Amino acid sequence: MVGTLQFTMTTTDASAALRDELDAINAKITKQASCVRELKKAASSADEIAAAVDALKDLKIESESLRKKMENLDPTAQFNRRVFDELILRKMFIVPSFEIHGGVKGLFDLGPPACAVKAAMVDVWRKHFVLAESMLEMECTCLTPEIVLKTSGHVDRFTDLMVKDPATGECFRADKLLEDAIEELIESNPDMPASEKEGHLRVQIQADAFSPAELDEKLVEYGCKAPSGELYGPSFPFNLMFKTSIGPEGTAVGYLRPETAQGLFVNFRRLLDANAQKMPFAAAQIGLGFRNEIAPRSGLLRVREFCMGEIEHFVNPDDKSHPNFPSVASKELVLFGRDDQLGSGKTKSIAIGEAVSSGIVNNETLGYFMARTQLFMERIGMDPNRLRFRQHLTTEMAHYACDCWDLEIQSSYGWVECVGHADRACYDLDVHSKATKTPMLATLKLDEAREVEVAKLKFDRKSLGKTFMADQRLVSGALETLAENWADFEPIANALETEGKATVDGFEITKEMVTWKKTSKKVHEIKFTPSVIEPSFGMGRILYSLLEHSFYQRDADEQRCVMRFKPAVAPQKCAVLPISSGEGVNAVVDEIAAELMESDLATRVDKSTASLGRRYSRADEVGVPFAVTVDFDTLIDGTVTLRERDSTVQIRLPKSDVSRVVFDFVHGRFTWEEAIAKYPVVQVKVD
Amino acid sequence: MVGTLQFTMTTTDASAALRDELDAINAKITKQASCVRELKKAASSADEIAAAVDALKDLKIESESLRKKMENLDPTAQFNRRVFDELILRKMFIVPSFEIHGGVKGLFDLGPPACAVKAAMVDVWRKHFVLAESMLEMECTCLTPEIVLKTSGHVDRFTDLMVKDPATGECFRADKLLEDAIEELIESNPDMPASEKEGHLRVQIQADAFSPAELDEKLVEYGCKAPSGELYGPSFPFNLMFKTSIGPEGTAVGYLRPETAQGLFVNFRRLLDANAQKMPFAAAQIGLGFRNEIAPRSGLLRVREFCMGEIEHFVNPDDKSHPNFPSVASKELVLFGRDDQLGSGKTKSIAIGEAVSSGIVNNETLGYFMARTQLFMERIGMDPNRLRFRQHLTTEMAHYACDCWDLEIQSSYGWVECVGHADRACYDLDVHSKATKTPMLATLKLDEAREVEVAKLKFDRKSLGKTFMADQRLVSGALETLAENWADFEPIANALETEGKATVDGFEITKEMVTWKKTSKKVHEIKFTPSVIEPSFGMGRILYSLLEHSFYQRDADEQRCVMRFKPAVAPQKCAVLPISSGEGVNAVVDEIAAELMESDLATRVDKSTASLGRRYSRADEVGVPFAVTVDFDTLIDGTVTLRERDSTVQIRLPKSDVSRVVFDFVHGRFTWEEAIAKYPVVQVKVD
Repeated sequence: MVGTLQFTMTTTDASAALRDELDAINAKITKQASCVRELKKAASSADEIAAAVDALKDLKIESESLRKKMENLDPTAQFNRRVFDELILRKMFIVPSFEIHGGVKGLFDLGPPACAVKAAMVDVWRKHFVLAESMLEMECTCLTPEIVLKTSGHVDRFTDLMVKDPATGECFRADKLLEDAIEELIESNPDMPASEKEGHLRVQIQADAFSPAELDEKLVEYGCKAPSGELYGPSFPFNLMFKTSIGPEGTAVGYLRPETAQGLFVNFRRLLDANAQKMPFAAAQIGLGFRNEIAPRSGLLRVREFCMGEIEHFVNPDDKSHPNFPSVASKELVLFGRDDQLGSGKTKSIAIGEAVSSGIVNNETLGYFMARTQLFMERIGMDPNRLRFRQHLTTEMAHYACDCWDLEIQSSYGWVECVGHADRACYDLDVHSKATKTPMLATLKLDEAREVEVAKLKFDRKSLGKTFMADQRLVSGALETLAENWADFEPIANALETEGKATVDGFEITKEMVTWKKTSKKVHEIKFTPSVIEPSFGMGRILYSLLEHSFYQRDADEQRCVMRFKPAVAPQKCAVLPISSGEGVNAVVDEIAAELMESDLATRVDKSTASLGRRYSRADEVGVPFAVTVDFDTLIDGTVTLRERDSTVQIRLPKSDVSRVVFDFVHGRFTWEEAIAKYPVVQVKVD
Repeated sequence: MVGTLQFTMTTTDASAALRDELDAINAKITKQASCVRELKKAASSADEIAAAVDALKDLKIESESLRKKMENLDPTAQFNRRVFDELILRKMFIVPSFEIHGGVKGLFDLGPPACAVKAAMVDVWRKHFVLAESMLEMECTCLTPEIVLKTSGHVDRFTDLMVKDPATGECFRADKLLEDAIEELIESNPDMPASEKEGHLRVQIQADAFSPAELDEKLVEYGCKAPSGELYGPSFPFNLMFKTSIGPEGTAVGYLRPETAQGLFVNFRRLLDANAQKMPFAAAQIGLGFRNEIAPRSGLLRVREFCMGEIEHFVNPDDKSHPNFPSVASKELVLFGRDDQLGSGKTKSIAIGEAVSSGIVNNETLGYFMARTQLFMERIGMDPNRLRFRQHLTTEMAHYACDCWDLEIQSSYGWVECVGHADRACYDLDVHSKATKTPMLATLKLDEAREVEVAKLKFDRKSLGKTFMADQRLVSGALETLAENWADFEPIANALETEGKATVDGFEITKEMVTWKKTSKKVHEIKFTPSVIEPSFGMGRILYSLLEHSFYQRDADEQRCVMRFKPAVAPQKCAVLPISSGEGVNAVVDEIAAELMESDLATRVDKSTASLGRRYSRADEVGVPFAVTVDFDTLIDGTVTLRERDSTVQIRLPKSDVSRVVFDFVHGRFTWEEAIAKYPVVQVKVD
């Protein structure tokens, strides 16, 4: 389940030190520049002036190098949102839905380039997770009957606290108001003592965990007022699910699923059969989720309809090891543990093997998926320096969860949760099993029979029948299940002995109904309700983050924006450009484009009359990694130039090699470095 | 827009003739068998008996050959639904959604094999349509504000006629009740004269085009009664869209989109920009649609949530040629034209080029997409003998549509519409343009300036202003637009002259407001509202049909079901099986499986203790096209056997060749015939 906490970034010490250094050098530059001006004014000797200018140049080089270092540490510092947003809209990566009709908050459409990047990203996800581990992928429906979401707890608890402006009726999300108020308070008091600031930040972190009464109190404490100037009305839970009615009678309530997971849980028995009863195994689903957000904001990061990818890995609760864990054990991850969040505020870089063995991460399977997620992010081209795993605070986690780690991606909106990794214990299967009276158990065959302590029960059927009537089998069945393990039955036995009664599955039983004997029994297999370990990907958020991580301006020029997509996820793989509109040249362009398309490579043909440089720039803007130019030499010797987007280096190769070479680039079978070694690099005047 | 008409199959003459012949031979068989029995009883000579038995055998061979011929003509005749349905459920191709909670009518989940087939099918679709023609693919939201669907006409007209059982309140779809009643009537009267039957069938075809009053009358006429025994209540329109509310205030009505098309229409201006203003061009979208069907039935063929793939090809209404039409002109399609449906009841096989030039199909672009759809179906493995294009009757088409052809696929449910091909004229862009006052025009640059007849207007601003106040610019703008083409303005001019008033965009103008002069003007470009040609794919229906077309029983054995998926769409590409559980053999199995996975080929490892034949059968059941078996010889010479699913022929090849060979099979770079020529075929005792 992708949650909603948005976390404020803490600047690292390293970047703070760099900033101090940079400030010092910039001060020197100002001083030296003024010195140069003085010398010129005073008509000093050319040598003297030249020396001062050289010194200034050196300082500038030093400053630039520091700036670049800082940019690497904190790339958002250099992020130009205005230019980025303009590009995203102009190239139709993402547009507001139903724009000409006025739009709807929290709904966005993916335009052609983003749609292609997303399809490629989903394809990589499927290969990286589903295919590589033979997961059982399903496609369940978005429409969900009420009973399923009542059972999962969503009807009662999938809420955010909302307040209203008493004057206008306008609705607001209460925890966000508090978070914003605290942020404003801290920003407007730069001299606030660290300890006081920490206190406020602690309140901020817990904003979405407060009860309505607590939140009301805090809103007053932090002086939050509605736009009308009045105090907000009391906060109350607002259910975030979209409600509808299924069928013509209008009596069957349905919801749009808020997550894809429930479809997999209710199919557990069939999935286990499909996996020939083998455990552990994972099911997966890619599809839409819907949340009627109270106040959608942050562009694609908090929307009302979104694509998710969820994996439900079913595992024996007593053995959460993962067979493939050794393959990732040495992978280093940036962890932001619970203690560090409430303590130092600093992250740790640590191998996942060590994190699991030292108990920071609860178990191997959870750690395995965290590492696989990191590898996925690197595979699609996310900046590895802007990824961290943040552990849920105890107050954030559901009561049944063992451990949760969110992969957070840093963008211009700060650190945003994009993938949840939760050990949900047996909660999900348990609730559906109880509500439907359907056993949802897996079987562990023991290598050798094992002696287990059990309770042997004897029922007073008459007494049971009198009290429970038709339900008596249900009651005795529940007791028999508990009796299979003495440890489970012991609390009931104690209650019956000391208080004369006990409650089982909501039925109150009394000591007349059952007697028992503690004994032991040889068993050859053990039945258990599997635990669920759930990596849950917010595909829309990942896509948006990837767009930000991929964006840069060549030579800091606003007119030369580039998206550095990896070939595998680029929306188009190759541009084909004629140097002139001559018939011979155009025929070769069409021939090469056709060959590329036949290899299923999305191709961009640009025969417009714009300059070659301009056409390269247009291809750069949508992240096309390669561009082939057909010129007059092509007509003579059959060779073309191939330009790589980021280096702008060009090589010359036979036109007949193009589609194979680009295919191999895209499928990771050939690198640009190998291409440079194989084909001659050509010098170009203008790019 | 995928409509809802389900068409009753008419047996072709060819198959009727075959059935007569088969009946005759079967009668002979009965006679000859009785003759053999007589001879035996009479203790005739061995020679005499042998001759009679031989004659019987010959007859049986002849009968079997005829049965096979018929099966080819009408494969559904041999389709064993019980076995098919059992397989679909057991192998978890498709399962009812939320089964353990009692399920919901019209909602189904795709299990792992169907999910993989669908993903592969969508991938082929994207390559065949989007990539091959550089279409602009988008992903718009399912949640849609009311204003958009009010504008498109769905809020008012996206309805089915419903009747209620007055006693119970149970709801029924009125046209389906009538269709069923007619079907029953015909079936229970096998001797009904052809002319009478034809009359009934004509009513049946028009069932979904009747008005409520007409339908009520027909229901009485055909004696339809509700389950309670009472007559149905009057029929009334029921809107099929799922309604919800967007935002926390609960005041903004939204619907789940009934089709994906509207998202593309409202984005037309941005799309045209993204295409650098070039016309014609196509936008495409793959995504969910939702319809609150009154009475979902027919398995996956009429469901409440479904995947669609829609293409909106925008074209100049005065030039509906398609640049790539010559590439498909000679493709033969089976057409079931309007006249043939109401006349002979027979289909025609005809080249699409001829169909367009003779006017059977309205224009090149429509014809082009019909042919491309046929090619797509063949590419994913649909049986080409069970495809036909049915033209919409005039009564079925929307008033604005020029021509519509549905690709119907024959399955055990009869001929079912799976892809609509509609020329929707300018309707969609027009309504959104008017509702939002946003021009949605494309520009045609003329090679040389053209003289056009226009009206030159002169407004009486005072009179306009007095009548229309703030709207006066709107009124004069609408008149100016019409005035750009005399033919458009002429009716207004006539009305003003003869009646003194005319209506433009809902405003009544009078002759005092405007005077005009017919004149001519040189223009260098023409602005027009593009027409939309829309191929609309019901992906779920196509998937279900593909499952039926792929299903067969080997040697008519119910225990040996096979799905003959093409390698490109098969859910898993290769099975890897050890002949024994020895460690050495298993290590090679893991090695080959790892290599296949590295090539992104979904692999099925089956190390179970079942016999090899049983494990081949299990792979056949989910349509795995190839199976590699590792045996003891593998450990000696490094070779393995590779079995092809349908022929069950096996070849022997080096284990190191496996992943490359299977990769090439899947990507269409190597055929099984070539493999047989290259590698030795091995003889196997049992399959």
